[in-house]
Amino acid sequence: MEIEFREGISEVIATTRNDQPNAAPMGIINRDFLYALIYKDSHTFLNVKKNRELVANFVLDPLLYVKTAFDDLDRSFFRSDEEAPVLTAAYAWVVFACTLLEKPTQKTALVKLLPKRSVVLQRPILPINRAFYAVLEATINATRYKTLKDQKYLECTAHFESIVRKCGGRQELEAFQLLKEYIA
Amino acid sequence: MEIEFREGISEVIATTRNDQPNAAPMGIINRDFLYALIYKDSHTFLNVKKNRELVANFVLDPLLYVKTAFDDLDRSFFRSDEEAPVLTAAYAWVVFACTLLEKPTQKTALVKLLPKRSVVLQRPILPINRAFYAVLEATINATRYKTLKDQKYLECTAHFESIVRKCGGRQELEAFQLLKEYIA
Repeated sequence: MEIEFREGISEVIATTRNDQPNAAPMGIINRDFLYALIYKDSHTFLNVKKNRELVANFVLDPLLYVKTAFDDLDRSFFRSDEEAPVLTAAYAWVVFACTLLEKPTQKTALVKLLPKRSVVLQRPILPINRAFYAVLEATINATRYKTLKDQKYLECTAHFESIVRKCGGRQELEAFQLLKEYIA
Repeated sequence: MEIEFREGISEVIATTRNDQPNAAPMGIINRDFLYALIYKDSHTFLNVKKNRELVANFVLDPLLYVKTAFDDLDRSFFRSDEEAPVLTAAYAWVVFACTLLEKPTQKTALVKLLPKRSVVLQRPILPINRAFYAVLEATINATRYKTLKDQKYLECTAHFESIVRKCGGRQELEAFQLLKEYIA
């Protein structure tokens, strides 16, 4: 496979298909084998259960991480020339075959991921930007706040915003603005 | 130039040369033009003042960010086939000509950066890893603690460590371990 997942968790945007294509941020876990932990009440899980397929999209725009965490993407965000659901914004992607290891008592299912095919359209050199990461961290905290309603998840927001303002470009500022609208 | 700096601040390892080559983490700021803010009491600044040259190294191993923040690298870490000081670990680098805009009253000098030459050895596809960023953030906080002796900079350490343990691979775990030794 052209794309190597490093040890640990890689943050991607996972896309799946049912009648409608769906997109949501997801961590791909590489510990001896590749898998993901997926909430059973999510669209992603329903689609994976039906089609046994999931695409990991590599995307540069932080706005898409925020948007897919809180919202649905319409069809215009997806490539029309691919059978699998692939984001037009993806510079690379991996199509996975999925095996469900569902435990009835748990909220999440362990989904084993077997790479079927990977596509690399571009190989951008990506300097590290703290603001991009701050948008991601703030998004993760905000989704926890939405689910668990615990104020502690919003306490870091001001800290992340200061990193976005100091280190970010227009894309990170726009993404953070959108995030604030979702949690308002 | 083959390497494009996105708007905002890109975190790189800056290398400079005097009698000895020197390496330190640095932010390259892209706001209309490229520049860096460099502490005047640093080796980096002394070397830039003398040679008007600085190399931005793109490096994957988080350990090098920790090590160069607190320690000197011996010559074995540098390429012997390059006139400019380039890290052997760099998968890409940019050599900059530097113009100093030093203000006598300030602790930092504004150094304008003009790209002279860039080299891309590899174009790795880099999935986003929260642990990598957590190592960087913890390192930045730890260097502030070392300089300012304010305990508040260490308060997030446990939080960053939990992200490293959850999302990281061996490289991030080793880097965080080294960081803890430096601040012990």
